[in-house]
Amino acid sequence: MTIDDLATPLLTVDMDIVAANISRLQSYADRHGLRNRPHVKTHKLPLIAHMQMRAGAVGIACQKLSEAEIMASAGIPDIQIVYPVIGRQKARRAASLAGLVRLSIAADSLEVAKGLSHAAASHGTHIDFYVDCDTGWKRTGVQTPADAIALADASHRLPALSFAGLMTYPTSPAVGPWFREVFAGLERIGLSRGVACGGGTPGVLETHNIAEIDEFRAGTYVYGDRSTINNGTGPLESCALRMRTTVVSAPTEDRVIVDAGTKALTTEPPEGSSDERFGYVVEYPDADIFLLEEEHGHIDVSKCASKPSLGETITVIPNNANAAVNMFNTVALHCSTLIQAISPIAARGALE
Amino acid sequence: MTIDDLATPLLTVDMDIVAANISRLQSYADRHGLRNRPHVKTHKLPLIAHMQMRAGAVGIACQKLSEAEIMASAGIPDIQIVYPVIGRQKARRAASLAGLVRLSIAADSLEVAKGLSHAAASHGTHIDFYVDCDTGWKRTGVQTPADAIALADASHRLPALSFAGLMTYPTSPAVGPWFREVFAGLERIGLSRGVACGGGTPGVLETHNIAEIDEFRAGTYVYGDRSTINNGTGPLESCALRMRTTVVSAPTEDRVIVDAGTKALTTEPPEGSSDERFGYVVEYPDADIFLLEEEHGHIDVSKCASKPSLGETITVIPNNANAAVNMFNTVALHCSTLIQAISPIAARGALE
Repeated sequence: MTIDDLATPLLTVDMDIVAANISRLQSYADRHGLRNRPHVKTHKLPLIAHMQMRAGAVGIACQKLSEAEIMASAGIPDIQIVYPVIGRQKARRAASLAGLVRLSIAADSLEVAKGLSHAAASHGTHIDFYVDCDTGWKRTGVQTPADAIALADASHRLPALSFAGLMTYPTSPAVGPWFREVFAGLERIGLSRGVACGGGTPGVLETHNIAEIDEFRAGTYVYGDRSTINNGTGPLESCALRMRTTVVSAPTEDRVIVDAGTKALTTEPPEGSSDERFGYVVEYPDADIFLLEEEHGHIDVSKCASKPSLGETITVIPNNANAAVNMFNTVALHCSTLIQAISPIAARGALE
Repeated sequence: MTIDDLATPLLTVDMDIVAANISRLQSYADRHGLRNRPHVKTHKLPLIAHMQMRAGAVGIACQKLSEAEIMASAGIPDIQIVYPVIGRQKARRAASLAGLVRLSIAADSLEVAKGLSHAAASHGTHIDFYVDCDTGWKRTGVQTPADAIALADASHRLPALSFAGLMTYPTSPAVGPWFREVFAGLERIGLSRGVACGGGTPGVLETHNIAEIDEFRAGTYVYGDRSTINNGTGPLESCALRMRTTVVSAPTEDRVIVDAGTKALTTEPPEGSSDERFGYVVEYPDADIFLLEEEHGHIDVSKCASKPSLGETITVIPNNANAAVNMFNTVALHCSTLIQAISPIAARGALE
């Protein structure tokens, strides 16, 4: 079976490119003595998580508890949930999960730490606790180094929980002085600083310039998208993920409609791009995907020397790989044009 | 089991409100002698499609072939695909589907009509063909009444296909004169005008003012969202679909983070609204969901008299019900606060 045999819209992943992307980032980590913990929110596939582990990752990062549960069931042994796991029910699920894998969870409040501690103690398991630090992104995270030190200290005193390090997003130059202040405070109270973790694909190849970071989480690098092209993580050729879509209507000379709309490509903007296109058309670089409706992609082809014709299938690099993957139930894994598997995206929609 | 027992983010559907919304629109259709063909892209659930049929719908509308296949397998007897079904493989699937249900397909090109005709003739089945007319929306659709007449005529001459009527989106005042011109042309060539179909929830309750329309497709009315509130289709109380989300972090006085981001609420804007919030918080009307990341919802609570606290679950009316439903694998159907079923969203991700 080849790619051409499958109905569109179709998400395809070139496994040779995936292997090369994994190898390149792991080599970078090894070269600089950094710990590599890939974020699986991009692919949501145990198969690729295992490829990342085999290449040398110390473990994986997950955004949600349900994502972590799926990866644990598939045999991934070391999982960090970089998201506050709150409430009694979720704390119990986390405590149970900690019986299956080495589990760490990052959060910014003592409430979350206490909930996890209580549940883990009841289950006879143990959870590593990371303090989530807001080093400037203004999302989650404790607001000051003093708060980080206090939460590290308090969490470490709780049963069945150990303070294991600091977590932040993204890895920016501001992290250096922020983390140094925490390290000094931890030393004063005699607490080991654990592992300092940064995150994000943009700038991941500069992580070694921030000496305070021991470990990084990157997700998008494995597939690539228009944002990774724009931020210099990798060129077009390193984009493993593509979306195939068919011209279903050609109502005017200048406009064609394809069968990928917001429910396939999503309205994510192209980070770091000067245009506002909803994706890049590989065969027709001058084609402008200028509007998406639920199932209709509007493409202005007025600037194209030759134009895609009715019924033709074209290939799009999505603006945001994470978002596009999350729209599909399955993905076609291929080597060259030969399909290896049509794989369910195991952790798609794993929101809880 | 009650709603409070389920992990967030959680999509809930109040079935009493759904029943009332279905009844209200069907009554409107009956009162004006209009044919009602609900669009199932909103709920994507055979259960609710059957409720709509039982109330008096003439059939359902689907956006994609795979959506139609799922609804046909669930026993819905009359399906219109308001989307061009193109390519040999899909034409064969459509022809096969036509053996199971009364199938109609709308398209704007003779290429699509020929493909369907060829496949249906081979399968010994029959497909009703609707001419998709661009009456001003600039999406798919033939560009002029003359083109519509020509395509109606040509499609009707093909084996295993009958011209069955006109389809347009949305139902706007421009439809009247456009369709009248087609009707006159069809009469000249002795072709029955068939059924004239309009679409869209906004303005659906004004359909009777456009005398040329026989049948309407509406989807969103069944659940309601911020757009239907804004366009006057129904008040807040008629919103059956809600998203429950939990405060996972309260990093500053003015800001909380909830566990619903773009992968739950999507970045759809609130149509017809003066604000740019990514949803309406029922318990805290002054809360401003001002930013979404993949799994993080940022809420400015500075204008709230009382503020949601860490660990609290709040209820959000999404900007766009169709988009939100498409993000979840399951939905909790309830009467009052009692869960009736946690239903897989059967046609979620049915893109092909």
